[in-house]
Amino acid sequence: MESWPPGGSGPAEAGPRLRGLRGADLAASASLLSGAGAGAEAGCSAPAVAAVLPAGGSGERMGVPTPKQFCPILERPLISYTLQALERVSWIKDIVVAVTGENMEAMKCIIQRYQHKGISLVESGVTRHRSIFNGLKALAEDQPNCRLSKPEVVIIHDAVRPFVEEDVLLKVVTAAKEHGAAGAIRPLVSTVISPSVDGCLDHSLERARHRASEMPQAFLFDVIYEAYQQCSDYDLEFGTECLHLALKYCHIKAKLIEGSPDLWKVTYKRDLYAAESIIKERISQQICVVMDAKEDEEHVGHRLEEMLKNELNHVKVTSGRDLQQIILEQCYNFVCVNVMTSDFEETQKLLNMLEESNLSILYPVVVISFSSPSHQEACTSLLDSLIHQRADSRSKKSYNSASCGTKTTFTER
Amino acid sequence: MESWPPGGSGPAEAGPRLRGLRGADLAASASLLSGAGAGAEAGCSAPAVAAVLPAGGSGERMGVPTPKQFCPILERPLISYTLQALERVSWIKDIVVAVTGENMEAMKCIIQRYQHKGISLVESGVTRHRSIFNGLKALAEDQPNCRLSKPEVVIIHDAVRPFVEEDVLLKVVTAAKEHGAAGAIRPLVSTVISPSVDGCLDHSLERARHRASEMPQAFLFDVIYEAYQQCSDYDLEFGTECLHLALKYCHIKAKLIEGSPDLWKVTYKRDLYAAESIIKERISQQICVVMDAKEDEEHVGHRLEEMLKNELNHVKVTSGRDLQQIILEQCYNFVCVNVMTSDFEETQKLLNMLEESNLSILYPVVVISFSSPSHQEACTSLLDSLIHQRADSRSKKSYNSASCGTKTTFTER
Repeated sequence: MESWPPGGSGPAEAGPRLRGLRGADLAASASLLSGAGAGAEAGCSAPAVAAVLPAGGSGERMGVPTPKQFCPILERPLISYTLQALERVSWIKDIVVAVTGENMEAMKCIIQRYQHKGISLVESGVTRHRSIFNGLKALAEDQPNCRLSKPEVVIIHDAVRPFVEEDVLLKVVTAAKEHGAAGAIRPLVSTVISPSVDGCLDHSLERARHRASEMPQAFLFDVIYEAYQQCSDYDLEFGTECLHLALKYCHIKAKLIEGSPDLWKVTYKRDLYAAESIIKERISQQICVVMDAKEDEEHVGHRLEEMLKNELNHVKVTSGRDLQQIILEQCYNFVCVNVMTSDFEETQKLLNMLEESNLSILYPVVVISFSSPSHQEACTSLLDSLIHQRADSRSKKSYNSASCGTKTTFTER
Repeated sequence: MESWPPGGSGPAEAGPRLRGLRGADLAASASLLSGAGAGAEAGCSAPAVAAVLPAGGSGERMGVPTPKQFCPILERPLISYTLQALERVSWIKDIVVAVTGENMEAMKCIIQRYQHKGISLVESGVTRHRSIFNGLKALAEDQPNCRLSKPEVVIIHDAVRPFVEEDVLLKVVTAAKEHGAAGAIRPLVSTVISPSVDGCLDHSLERARHRASEMPQAFLFDVIYEAYQQCSDYDLEFGTECLHLALKYCHIKAKLIEGSPDLWKVTYKRDLYAAESIIKERISQQICVVMDAKEDEEHVGHRLEEMLKNELNHVKVTSGRDLQQIILEQCYNFVCVNVMTSDFEETQKLLNMLEESNLSILYPVVVISFSSPSHQEACTSLLDSLIHQRADSRSKKSYNSASCGTKTTFTER
């Protein structure tokens, strides 16, 4: 039986991550929770955890015809980033997404295209609460031919909060197991006021005494399912807050967890701009160095890899044989290092695959061909060029670093 | 005496605007206000209006060392965009900015560099309320050698809300003149909750019954100045809401005005990303066509101008003699149309001036040289290239449209 919370080891990494928690951070997080009174719980059995993602909204506040969860960021729909963030958490067993019948096929295509795993689709309701309820029903009911099973704890998240981190998911799940319900909160940015019926100020709320309720939230499954079964049509039509249902119908006072600014909800068009910039910033920190892994340790590609690792947060290095895998894992920056003439075939293969995959690539693929395979100076100069070029630069560059006998070509795609 | 509100004509345009209200919109806005019960007030005398901008914050939520109001967007500080939005409103007579002693010189440089007019600087206090109070004092006191005079209505705005539009300013000022106080509001994005002392949910607020209080706000000067003079040290230290002070100390219930999503406050790093994208989107809609205005109506530049006007929101066309003015007005996209050899001198002059001015330019300056000055087809092809190139493209392009005997060069800067 797994110990819970999964402190020491952290979840298995499934490919390059936009950003992730390291094991040490998770351990610290788990220990913080223990320190807050859950000490006796540490090491208890891992709860079965599922997630429900209501994604039936029309995104009317965005001012664009596409529902915001399907708006493309670097040509990939927003919801796919959110699914990626959830499915990377190894202890979330099932993810149930509620979408409109109209968008069901589009959602299936997204799942297939981006190879999302462990996703089940249900039809959304006409309101957020009805969509969540449909998701919970799918988890509760033992239907034939259905691989879903009732979890102990269920996470409810928004399709339009793509930057959720494992640590906050862990915190809300752990707190939900102890308190029955838990949710992420943030300080208020604006003062909240209550208008009178004539459109004038009645009173303003003290900002320090209130918080914005954000997502993710987590619940003991039986608690939130009971709340949804009992709640009124009025709640289902006009309510928005799951924590409120757990309080009203099950008398569960949710534990509140301080979340990071990244939890914000993509609501307006400006939020799409912000999300795109954040994603660009993150993925520009990942470089896949493609070389022939059979080469010895002195291979110039290994040198480059070491130097990149010192400068960037995440560098994935792989041999030419794993090209298909690299593309699946959504790396956006490629450096191909060719020492032997035969390497060119692998490079050409990668370029063809990228062309076919229709991936957005932040920078041109960099192809480096060394006529002499061991020049530290060439590496340094290359590194400078790679990491200091501006994020919005897509210009075609081609130059020779003649002094060290290498030829370096930046091939634009 | 001017009539108020300034419905029919709208304010004088001071150069190309990021986005502005047209006269018709202002008239509609004024008529809406009349319809809401202010009918008898229409045509009354124009109030003297000033604005106070507290800009002494440290921007700690941004996570960057520079206070957010001074963070550069396209190399220009955020506060400069906000000042530009205010100073374009012809009926705002004075703008008082409260900055820390430490940033006083930097603020003077910004005013000089971007040629802001009608700005007075005062030293900020240690809190937002103290900074606003200092601004109000500067307007209230008849000091020798001070050009400021006490206004009838004062607008209070934030330095970090650069996208404020004239219509909402007009609405809050008009409502303040009638009600004594007025402020912009927005729907809540998240449910607001009240935590108990043990960090659990005490209760959640009904989202539909509450609003986020945003900026701008406006007050009869005597009301808000009285409120600040009477309010406690506790208010000055821990309060944030001017509407609350007007209610508490002067029993004025502020009129609440629905604002647009653009009023949001730049608070986090993601908001800077969003602001930059919005500004880029807006200024990419402005093109300055530089040509010799002495040319006849058949000049290919005029044809280009007409076609651009059909496709884009705002095209400013000017002759070569006004280059200095164009640069002051912060246009970011240039097309130079040369028909005669002598035109090249003007083009070179523009390029030199741009180089010296250190302006951010979204696209490369486009230089078009026609050997034959009257080819509709060339114009069409050019237009396609200009308006359909992607916003983030900065690549150097050079091509000949040989079929119609013209030469078109995109010169990268």
